[in-house]
Amino acid sequence: MKISPMRILFALLLFATAAFAADPLPSWSDGPAKQSIITFVAKVTTAGSPDFVPVPERIATFDNDGTLWCEKPIPVQLYFLLDRVKALAPQHPEWKTTEPFASILKGDTKAALAGGERGLLELIMATHTGNTTEEFEQIVKDWISTAKHPKTGKLYTEMTYQPMLELLAYLRANGFKTFIVSGGGIEFMRPWAERVYGVPPEQVVGSSVKTKFEMRDGKPVLLRLPEVNFIDDKGGKPVGINEHIGRRPVMAFGNSDGDLQMLQYTRAGSGARFCLYVHHDDAAREYAYDRKDALARLDQGLDEAAVKGWTVVSMKNDWKRIFAFEK
Amino acid sequence: MKISPMRILFALLLFATAAFAADPLPSWSDGPAKQSIITFVAKVTTAGSPDFVPVPERIATFDNDGTLWCEKPIPVQLYFLLDRVKALAPQHPEWKTTEPFASILKGDTKAALAGGERGLLELIMATHTGNTTEEFEQIVKDWISTAKHPKTGKLYTEMTYQPMLELLAYLRANGFKTFIVSGGGIEFMRPWAERVYGVPPEQVVGSSVKTKFEMRDGKPVLLRLPEVNFIDDKGGKPVGINEHIGRRPVMAFGNSDGDLQMLQYTRAGSGARFCLYVHHDDAAREYAYDRKDALARLDQGLDEAAVKGWTVVSMKNDWKRIFAFEK
Repeated sequence: MKISPMRILFALLLFATAAFAADPLPSWSDGPAKQSIITFVAKVTTAGSPDFVPVPERIATFDNDGTLWCEKPIPVQLYFLLDRVKALAPQHPEWKTTEPFASILKGDTKAALAGGERGLLELIMATHTGNTTEEFEQIVKDWISTAKHPKTGKLYTEMTYQPMLELLAYLRANGFKTFIVSGGGIEFMRPWAERVYGVPPEQVVGSSVKTKFEMRDGKPVLLRLPEVNFIDDKGGKPVGINEHIGRRPVMAFGNSDGDLQMLQYTRAGSGARFCLYVHHDDAAREYAYDRKDALARLDQGLDEAAVKGWTVVSMKNDWKRIFAFEK
Repeated sequence: MKISPMRILFALLLFATAAFAADPLPSWSDGPAKQSIITFVAKVTTAGSPDFVPVPERIATFDNDGTLWCEKPIPVQLYFLLDRVKALAPQHPEWKTTEPFASILKGDTKAALAGGERGLLELIMATHTGNTTEEFEQIVKDWISTAKHPKTGKLYTEMTYQPMLELLAYLRANGFKTFIVSGGGIEFMRPWAERVYGVPPEQVVGSSVKTKFEMRDGKPVLLRLPEVNFIDDKGGKPVGINEHIGRRPVMAFGNSDGDLQMLQYTRAGSGARFCLYVHHDDAAREYAYDRKDALARLDQGLDEAAVKGWTVVSMKNDWKRIFAFEK
């Protein structure tokens, strides 16, 4: 057979296409974790596959702290809270002699956590409410554009995990709607989630305070009240998912026992479902913590993941790099 | 000049394209209401226009009862409630002698409303809770597929307004995300809103009861509790919009004073905004009611619409047909 120049050109083109077909998850090492994601996405998006899921039902939910961005030494929203105490202190002279404010103002970050969950709620109410939703949004935007991680000196929005950013984009490219389902404040995440994660405000689920509609000088505003509306953690996550999304996720991603109920709820749906835990086992490049961590324990979840065959990502082994700013 | 056959063909093609360019709102009469919609959509979607709105910010919110479907003689969910009382009666022998159940079981529909808002809430708790979210979804699906309007004998899902269905599709074709923001139950609307309106569950905002995550025989379920979670009406509508969408609508559509705060909140945003009231003034083809209606009053809203120049749709004059089943 004579080989025509056209044939050669065609063969070259084919080769080039294959060689340059971009790996959608370049920061993931080849291995069982990456493979489990790609295999799952292929089977639920291939028409005719017994596991095929129609596009409107392709819901993927992601925890935020420790799953999409770094939550150590303490969760980012706590740094925001500490800075709010300092910013509001001039209006509260009594804080100089009232705990935990006095200690916080002296630079003792641990004081913010000393009062447990109840003390934390009190601090949130003192620092996150009393303004309108628009005012609060602007405060968050200003803070997040300048505040920096104490260890790396990077903006918190740079402390997002590059492999997870790739995963969000990969799922969206495959017809998934990506949601954040976080114990963090819904109004704390929305002002930057779209820019940083590509997740629009209507796809952010989180904890919230009550708001109240009122007219202020003839202009309608929503006032943030010092009253808990919803805690989006543990059993609250499936509740929040049902309330905001109204459809059971097909894929769910977390990193702590606070995400366990979300993963259980996801897995209990009919048809193919995918659950993944990010396991913080890389003290050199990030932090290492799991069964004994006070704020973000991953204990029961690790056991259940092993029994049920959920994907557990070793940050050390499965991620080539953790942050985009790494060489 | 000699006219070539190609030129003639091209002219014919142009003519054909213009003649067949589909009117996106064929059930709307030409007039100021239709024109106001088309003009507004053109100016916010035309790149370079001073009123241009980027696609992610194109949020349109629609009330449901009386705005997207018929709410007379009584709102559809009340018929559902009455049928639930009948279906549950065998498990509640005491209802035979307890009001308002006794009257409802004798066929007195007015009894459901006799107790005012508080009585209605009690009836909702008795008929809408105590099951899982999945069980309730199935009950709604079964009911909505067979229950019929008492006057027309049509399925309630056929009692949707054809001009509004066209409007929903037209806005989506122009990059808008369409949301329902209704005083009705969020879990009552979601099972059919996607099929009937093209609005997926995650874009439905409504009133809700609290739910609780629990394990039932090792399977995670969400239990519907007899406790109000949220009332999505009046000042609650902007609250619900902020909570679920997190972005101020660019366009808002309602038909009663219960929608007024949603329209005010929408209008108060910066840049171009559009507010529209559907005015029920067609007793022949549908129902006529406004300032004096007990359940769906449009009084203050009509005044404010006049002052602020909002679009008020006369169902009689602005809609060529109301229901798809009309000739």
